[in-house]
Amino acid sequence: MKIYLDNGATTKVDDEVVKAVTKYFTAEYGNSSSIHQVGRAAKEALENSREIIAKSLNAEPEEIIFTSGGTESNNLAIKGIAFANKEKGNHIIITKVEHDCVLNACRWLETQGFKITYLDVDKEGFIDLEQLKSSINNKTILVSVIHGNNEIGTINDLEAIGKICKENKVLFHTDACQSFTKTEIDVKKQNLDLATINAHKIHGPKGVGALYIKKYTKIIPLFHGGGQEFNKRSGTVNVSGIVGFAKAVELANKADIEKMEKLRDKLINQVLKEISHTMLNGPRKKRLCNNVDISFEFIEGESLLMRLDDQGIEVSTGSACSSKSLEPSHVLLAIGLKHETAHGTLRMTLSKYTTEKEIDKTIKVLKEEVAALRVMSPLVKD
Amino acid sequence: MKIYLDNGATTKVDDEVVKAVTKYFTAEYGNSSSIHQVGRAAKEALENSREIIAKSLNAEPEEIIFTSGGTESNNLAIKGIAFANKEKGNHIIITKVEHDCVLNACRWLETQGFKITYLDVDKEGFIDLEQLKSSINNKTILVSVIHGNNEIGTINDLEAIGKICKENKVLFHTDACQSFTKTEIDVKKQNLDLATINAHKIHGPKGVGALYIKKYTKIIPLFHGGGQEFNKRSGTVNVSGIVGFAKAVELANKADIEKMEKLRDKLINQVLKEISHTMLNGPRKKRLCNNVDISFEFIEGESLLMRLDDQGIEVSTGSACSSKSLEPSHVLLAIGLKHETAHGTLRMTLSKYTTEKEIDKTIKVLKEEVAALRVMSPLVKD
Repeated sequence: MKIYLDNGATTKVDDEVVKAVTKYFTAEYGNSSSIHQVGRAAKEALENSREIIAKSLNAEPEEIIFTSGGTESNNLAIKGIAFANKEKGNHIIITKVEHDCVLNACRWLETQGFKITYLDVDKEGFIDLEQLKSSINNKTILVSVIHGNNEIGTINDLEAIGKICKENKVLFHTDACQSFTKTEIDVKKQNLDLATINAHKIHGPKGVGALYIKKYTKIIPLFHGGGQEFNKRSGTVNVSGIVGFAKAVELANKADIEKMEKLRDKLINQVLKEISHTMLNGPRKKRLCNNVDISFEFIEGESLLMRLDDQGIEVSTGSACSSKSLEPSHVLLAIGLKHETAHGTLRMTLSKYTTEKEIDKTIKVLKEEVAALRVMSPLVKD
Repeated sequence: MKIYLDNGATTKVDDEVVKAVTKYFTAEYGNSSSIHQVGRAAKEALENSREIIAKSLNAEPEEIIFTSGGTESNNLAIKGIAFANKEKGNHIIITKVEHDCVLNACRWLETQGFKITYLDVDKEGFIDLEQLKSSINNKTILVSVIHGNNEIGTINDLEAIGKICKENKVLFHTDACQSFTKTEIDVKKQNLDLATINAHKIHGPKGVGALYIKKYTKIIPLFHGGGQEFNKRSGTVNVSGIVGFAKAVELANKADIEKMEKLRDKLINQVLKEISHTMLNGPRKKRLCNNVDISFEFIEGESLLMRLDDQGIEVSTGSACSSKSLEPSHVLLAIGLKHETAHGTLRMTLSKYTTEKEIDKTIKVLKEEVAALRVMSPLVKD
């Protein structure tokens, strides 16, 4: 039995999505900018997909710009708004627990004359709304706060943040890659000006994402060219991928979320109860339905990961993109973990395919492997 | 019978490619940055693909950066080199017949303090090497010349251009989206520092491309983030798409090229012979094996396109991305065509799937439809 608990890194593509995608590989392979029949069919599929995705965010179709994924969307949002608003101001506010692509886009902007404020988070990963308010100044052009944290699952209160941004006339962006379809995103209610979403975290294909950009928001494209996506993003549109993205959105449903929540809680509760010296990172409530992030004292997360892998259980120690780094996770440090505790952390992320049997097996194997590692650990005190 | 002659816009995905891609949707869906088994399998597939593509360009694997397509690669090449060499110089040389994404990336750079020289081309679309030489100055950081022109099929002499760039210590980039696998690209022989290629023009999936970046070339990423592609491009790697890209490269072969050349020449010769007041745009030799671009005097290309479409023949009037524009093609104007001649132009681009029967039918229908349009045309003189 193979147990895949790394759905925060990527997910298996749903069979229905595969069917939808492959139709646009061979039967309907047109370029959506072509004006002949096969081009028009591609265009129609593109616009149907755009409607589905817009609706899922309570946005208008023309506010959805398709991209190659979360990283592109986040870079487009942050750099595009920065360059478009240079005259207005050079100050951007983000948090210390953003995904690497938001953080590193901002670090690069610092070399281009922009000032970045990195908001603290509390021990559960939430930002402090008062600190946000007091950080906004007359040069602030953008606030970007991650919706569902990719490591510790914290779901920030977009509505409260959006209200502050609106009151202060500052644009508001969220990276919603992990939360999309898992918890409500309503761009109107939450006063979002920009929101990043993608497909491969929700059983869609890799290489496809979108950026919601509120009507009349000025942005400088990352890709100049043919202007295919409302002159905000150029390049032959990845119709097959986008059709798959929309199909994945259509397939997402409440029952799957509830199932994941139940299994998530079982995994958290049993591990904390049955394995000593363990600690949940991130909150109990306002937590991504598929995220479990637990620190195991006295052991290396990577050793545990390898042992689980040997037994067919696939987990991660944090975000996939920094999996090869020796540095402890910036998210775990931001919520106050010590280096050694951060290093002993495992992220287990469920999907709609995860079964109770798999969770039971995971708990059992975790108990055994943690015990085995602790026997060998020089860190164990008693 | 449906006849698709718009392979310069995009191509049907090869069945072998579909098979390769879908395997990485479901059986091997891992994130190539994950360190468990399914992640390692994805990583292996990624690196195998990288080797195949590197070899096809006579490059090293670590010189291949996967992207979301030609537009991203061209934007990364041009903006990335510009920002990385700001201290050194602010002058870039391109041609008047580049793809929109190169042109518009450069136009944006003009707003950021860069100077662009737009080289002329002769009536067949070739650049003048002497003009190139005399345009290089001590502020020049980059020369970018399209390899195979997407509208008129002209194949520029990369080796001669590369020699000039090398002698003048200027970086050399080419947009090889249309020529890749259709005519030789050898980054060493041609002294290329950067080369843009993509998948969907060669029966691979949309949303996948690559940028060859010569070792030790400094470049500023377009996408900051996890640094997945040698810190030159971030974002979860589109493994399934890349596997499909490599498969498409493997499938490309000389016999298909020769078949396309033969049919291309038949189409050109018969149309020019059987329909009066027609003119081939671009050269006879040094021409993309699949490109036919013909101006029909006294008619509107778009009317002809629509009539062909009604008969199941799908062609274009120029590049797909500017298909909705009323402006005549900048490429056709650059080779000296008058506005009305440019407007009467049709591009017919073949693929390995094009048959002689399809070409014969196309010639027949073209004759009929051109005649019908000319009867109605107020432009016909006698």
